[in-house]
Amino acid sequence: MKLVRYGEDGREIPGIIDTEGRIRSLLGVVDEIDGRALSPAGLDRLRELDLSLLPFAPTGARLGPCVGRVGKLIGIGLNYSDHAEESGLPVPTEPIVFMKATSAISGPYDPVRLPARATKADWEVELAFVIGTRAKNVAEAQALDHVAGYLIVNDVSERAWQTERQGQWTKGKSHDSFAPMGPWLVTREDVPDPGALAMTLDVNGVRRQTGSTRTMIFGVATLVSYLSSFMTLHPGDVVTTGTPPGVGLGMKPPVYLKPGDVMHLTIEGLGDQQQEVIVDDDA
Amino acid sequence: MKLVRYGEDGREIPGIIDTEGRIRSLLGVVDEIDGRALSPAGLDRLRELDLSLLPFAPTGARLGPCVGRVGKLIGIGLNYSDHAEESGLPVPTEPIVFMKATSAISGPYDPVRLPARATKADWEVELAFVIGTRAKNVAEAQALDHVAGYLIVNDVSERAWQTERQGQWTKGKSHDSFAPMGPWLVTREDVPDPGALAMTLDVNGVRRQTGSTRTMIFGVATLVSYLSSFMTLHPGDVVTTGTPPGVGLGMKPPVYLKPGDVMHLTIEGLGDQQQEVIVDDDA
Repeated sequence: MKLVRYGEDGREIPGIIDTEGRIRSLLGVVDEIDGRALSPAGLDRLRELDLSLLPFAPTGARLGPCVGRVGKLIGIGLNYSDHAEESGLPVPTEPIVFMKATSAISGPYDPVRLPARATKADWEVELAFVIGTRAKNVAEAQALDHVAGYLIVNDVSERAWQTERQGQWTKGKSHDSFAPMGPWLVTREDVPDPGALAMTLDVNGVRRQTGSTRTMIFGVATLVSYLSSFMTLHPGDVVTTGTPPGVGLGMKPPVYLKPGDVMHLTIEGLGDQQQEVIVDDDA
Repeated sequence: MKLVRYGEDGREIPGIIDTEGRIRSLLGVVDEIDGRALSPAGLDRLRELDLSLLPFAPTGARLGPCVGRVGKLIGIGLNYSDHAEESGLPVPTEPIVFMKATSAISGPYDPVRLPARATKADWEVELAFVIGTRAKNVAEAQALDHVAGYLIVNDVSERAWQTERQGQWTKGKSHDSFAPMGPWLVTREDVPDPGALAMTLDVNGVRRQTGSTRTMIFGVATLVSYLSSFMTLHPGDVVTTGTPPGVGLGMKPPVYLKPGDVMHLTIEGLGDQQQEVIVDDDA
């Protein structure tokens, strides 16, 4: 199944993609694509629907972030060995964990908003997963049972704020619109191997990132198990698993995002995203 | 006003403290002590209530965390110069920002749960504030207008997970029960100067931390303004502002929490907290 949220920012309506690729409304079926809807029982209920009976979403409706009411948005750093190398950092021997503000979450085609003083904004195409069943001290062998599905996240990062402003990465990872999510949440049964998905990111039509989740250092099952030993993962939590090589920071000289740039992201089977970079004039 | 949440973990009921210090139920008045209730209009509505008409909470009811539906739980590191010194770290020249998992939030008298492998768990009494009005690029002069009120947070931290396990502090700050909150949310008008509050923390009856928010490096108004330049603060977001000297990490040799220990925290005008440390046997 492919689940979506569509409509006005902050008032999204839950939806589902039918066999012809059209959005059908889940209004009256579930109130949100959230932890409750993503539980095994919640997903079973959606699987039983006859989609042909559901009304269509309005043509051209905006797609919002495909998961609502996200509790935690956890990021994994330097999880591709080549990306660690281009960042000039040692390959980690255990997962590097950080958090992005949930207020950074935006729709897959919404603009990425940069304050004028953000001079080192960078792109990161990433495979993310959403939790469907509470996970605490979960063994790797059972870990994937706790995952409801997969999605694309662009882990937009302001490098100066991330690493030159003292302390933790939080400042550089959390600006509004720095976490486009979607277009769809693809449920687990439709992603037989999350460890073998091709991924790309273009900026202004030029290919910048080409990778595969095959070269992740710590795979999805390892991450669920590892994270669940430090904190309980709850249904609706989202984990974005790191980016392959090709970020702006790694170019010589580095290249950063500027207003007017357009990013285009794909992950095999998970659809695509596109964001224009604009100046953030939101007070 | 002093606002609380009481009752069973995960099913807390909103309440308010009356002039005799008793808990009155806000059931039917608000559904949560959350961003909506903490807006200026929401608080005005509560101020107009005749508390004597509200039913009492059951005697001996558990107090839950005093804010519900927390969106972000932001921490400030090394925000007291003496604490930076005892941690062996330079005094920061701008705020150090990290995030704790919102799933770490617990009640003010709930036990702190330590997995057996947590060998360097430490205490941190902290003044925290909760946002009542959306804050983005807010000037310091207006910053306190965005604060709904103040509370105590014990920023429990596992030092090995925080600093010896690679990467960011997230792992050491986020275990379930590592963020006791309360007992009360004291609204802004009852805390005329958040920069002059005495604070203490005892472990097993021995005073470990004695401080005052007077020695904070970055005060509440500065923090609201600073944070709001990196991410939008939304009603219901909680920021915990750092700890004075006297943590276990700073003792020579360091002293860490063990099962059976009892922490007791106070901040002037904000009440007290007490937590027993227990072994976490929650699978």
